[in-house]
Amino acid sequence: MSAEGAADEEVRLARAYLSRVAEPPALALGALIDLLGPVEAARRVRRGDVPVSVQVQTAARCAEDRAEEDLRRVAEAGGRLVVPEDEEWPAWPFTALAVAGRQRLRCGGEPLALWVRGAAACAELAERAVAVVGSRAASGYGQHVAAEFGHGLAAAGLVVVSGAAHGVDGAAHRGALAAGGRTLAVLACGVDVAYPAGHQALLARIPERGLVVSEYPPGTSPARHRFLTRNRLIAALALGTVVVEAGRRSGAKNTAASTTALGRVLMAVPGPITSATSVGCGELLRSGEAVAVSSVEEVVESVGRIGDDLVEPPPRSAREFGSPDGEAMRVHDALSPALGRSPQAISVESGVPLDRVRALLPEFELSGHAARTETGWVRVGTTGRR
Amino acid sequence: MSAEGAADEEVRLARAYLSRVAEPPALALGALIDLLGPVEAARRVRRGDVPVSVQVQTAARCAEDRAEEDLRRVAEAGGRLVVPEDEEWPAWPFTALAVAGRQRLRCGGEPLALWVRGAAACAELAERAVAVVGSRAASGYGQHVAAEFGHGLAAAGLVVVSGAAHGVDGAAHRGALAAGGRTLAVLACGVDVAYPAGHQALLARIPERGLVVSEYPPGTSPARHRFLTRNRLIAALALGTVVVEAGRRSGAKNTAASTTALGRVLMAVPGPITSATSVGCGELLRSGEAVAVSSVEEVVESVGRIGDDLVEPPPRSAREFGSPDGEAMRVHDALSPALGRSPQAISVESGVPLDRVRALLPEFELSGHAARTETGWVRVGTTGRR
Repeated sequence: MSAEGAADEEVRLARAYLSRVAEPPALALGALIDLLGPVEAARRVRRGDVPVSVQVQTAARCAEDRAEEDLRRVAEAGGRLVVPEDEEWPAWPFTALAVAGRQRLRCGGEPLALWVRGAAACAELAERAVAVVGSRAASGYGQHVAAEFGHGLAAAGLVVVSGAAHGVDGAAHRGALAAGGRTLAVLACGVDVAYPAGHQALLARIPERGLVVSEYPPGTSPARHRFLTRNRLIAALALGTVVVEAGRRSGAKNTAASTTALGRVLMAVPGPITSATSVGCGELLRSGEAVAVSSVEEVVESVGRIGDDLVEPPPRSAREFGSPDGEAMRVHDALSPALGRSPQAISVESGVPLDRVRALLPEFELSGHAARTETGWVRVGTTGRR
Repeated sequence: MSAEGAADEEVRLARAYLSRVAEPPALALGALIDLLGPVEAARRVRRGDVPVSVQVQTAARCAEDRAEEDLRRVAEAGGRLVVPEDEEWPAWPFTALAVAGRQRLRCGGEPLALWVRGAAACAELAERAVAVVGSRAASGYGQHVAAEFGHGLAAAGLVVVSGAAHGVDGAAHRGALAAGGRTLAVLACGVDVAYPAGHQALLARIPERGLVVSEYPPGTSPARHRFLTRNRLIAALALGTVVVEAGRRSGAKNTAASTTALGRVLMAVPGPITSATSVGCGELLRSGEAVAVSSVEEVVESVGRIGDDLVEPPPRSAREFGSPDGEAMRVHDALSPALGRSPQAISVESGVPLDRVRALLPEFELSGHAARTETGWVRVGTTGRR
C-alpha cells in the first residue's frame, strides 16, 4: 500500500491482468490470490503453474495479457481500476460475497477488482446505499414509482444503486440525479461501453457525483450470463434492494434472490394483480421473501437499524371512539342529527342503561358530539357507517 | 331438540326475546344462557333477577318482549330464526368466537341466535366459505378483482361471504351469483331491512341459493357500531378473509383484525401504492398480518389444508439454461447469430476451456441451440439480455 491508501502499481497491473483472464465470479482464482497475493498469482497464471481448478478458469485467456492497455483505456474514459488493496475498496459490503462463495452459493465470489468511472469513492457510496431495480419493460406505474423512490431516497441522503437498464433502472437513476443526489450504476459490460445505447447521456451524467462500476475490463460486451453475475454486485453494494416491478421471469428476481442470499433486506412494491409487470413482486410478497414497501419512508425504515428511522403511525382522529362495543359509540349512534330524542329512547335504541346514557350525553355536549335541543338530544358532527 | 334436529318452539321464543333484549355481543348474557339454558335465562331477564353484569346489558330493553312478533315478521320476510339448538347452527365456526370471548378479545362472543333468509343451511355454507371484503368506495380495479374473485371462488365450489355493502362487497356477491354459486351476506341490520337501499335487488337474489344472515332482530336499523360487531361474524363464518381494497381507515381493516384474532387466514390483494384504496392492503402486507394473493388459485391454496390445493409453480422453459456461471450459458452467449466463430475464438470470448467448448458445441447442435456453418459456429434460437 502506498502512503495515500492506494495500492502499488505492480499490484494494480497484476489485478488488471487477472480481471481479464478469468470470467467472474472466479472463486478458485480468488482463493489463489488470497493465498499468494495478486502479483505472484498473476505470475503463476501466466506460466500455467496453477491448480486444476484455476487452470479451468484461466486456460482459455491466460495469454490475453492486456493489463497496461486496459488501464490506459479506462483512464482515457475518465476512469480507474479500484483493487482490494485500495482504501476505497468496499471491503465490508463485499464480505457477504466472500461468505456466500465459501458456501458455494450462486451469488458468491468477491470481484477481483472493480473498473470505475466517477468522482466518488466506492466504499463511501456503498455505506448508505439502497438498490432500486425492476423490469426493463416497466409500465408507466413502475417508471413513476422508480423515479419517485430514486428521488426520495437521494433526497434523504441515500445512494441509489441500479443497473442502468431501460425501464425501472433508468428511472431510478434519473430520479436520484433530479434530486441532486448520488447514484451508482453497476454494468454487465465495460464502463467504457455505452449500453444500452439509449442511456449514453445518463451514463455520462452519473459519474459527475456518483459512480459507474463494473468487474469487466474495458471493451467487454454485455452478455446474458454477465447480467446475472452483475446482479449479485447490485445486491452486495446496497443495504437492501427494492424490486419496483418484475415480470414472472424478470432479471430483477435474480437480484432479489441474491439480496436474500447475501442477508440484505429485500423489499417489493405492491402493484395491480392484473399487471404482468407486477407478477414477480406479487410472488416475492406472497412467499414472504420480500417485505412490502409503499413509500420512501418505509424503505428507509426497512433498511434502517432497528429503532432508527421508524415511520410514525398515522395519527388517530381526535373524533374517533374507542372499542366497537364501547357504550359511547352506541349512544352516539343512537342519536339522530335531525330528530331530538329523550335519554329513555336513546337507552332503548342503544341498549345502554339509562344512567350511563344520562352520564354520557353531557360529555358529548362538552366534546361537541351532541347538542341539547327543545325536542331532545341530537347528534353533532359526522359519523361513519360500517 | 325436536326429532328433525330443530329446537323446541319454547327455546326459539326465548332466544328471539334474548336476541332483542341485549345489544350484541352480550358476553355476560351468553354465559348466563350457557348456565341456565335459554328458557330459564329469559325468565330471569324478564324479572330482572340476574347478576349485575347481565343487568347492565339487559336493563334498558328487558321490557321489549316482542319475540312472537319478531318471529312473525321474519317469517313474513321469508326467513327464520336459527338457534344454537338447531342442527344447522354453525357450531364449529363459532367456537373461535367463544374462545375469543373468554380471552376478552374485541371480536369475541357467539351470537345468541341468527336471523336468516334463504334456502341453504347455515352450517353447511360455512363449511367451505371464503370472505371477500373491502372498501365501499372501491376503485374500478377493486370492483373488478372482487367480481373476479367472487366468480372464481364460487366456480371452485366455495361459498363467498361478504357484507352486502357498496363497492367490494357487492361486486363479490354479484360475481358469485354470476357463476351460479352460493353466497352469504351478513348484515348489520335486520334481514328484512333493505340496506343499502341500492342493493335491494341483490339482497332479494342472494337467498335463492345462499343466505342473508344477521344477529339483529327484524327491523333493526344499521349503526356504525353494528357494522364493527357484524364484521366478526364475517370473519368467523369463513375459512379465511380476502381484503380486496381498503383505505387507511376502512371497515375492512376491522374485519381483517377479527380474522387474525380468530385464527383464520388473512389475505390481501396487492394494489398500486399510488391508490388510496389500496393503502390498507399495503399496510396488512407490510406488517406481515396478511398473505398476498393474486389469483383465485392462490386464495384456495391459502385457505386449503396443507398439501391440498397447492398451486403448481409455473413451468420452466425447456430452453432455459442452468446456473448463471454455467459454462453452457457462457459458451452460448459467446456465439453470434450472424457471424461464424471458431471454437478457439469462442473459448477466449467465454473464458471456457477449449476442450469444454469443443464438447458443448455438438450438444448445442443436437438441442437446436447452435449450428455449424462454413464460416464457423453460429447461435440459433432466442437469447435474452440481462
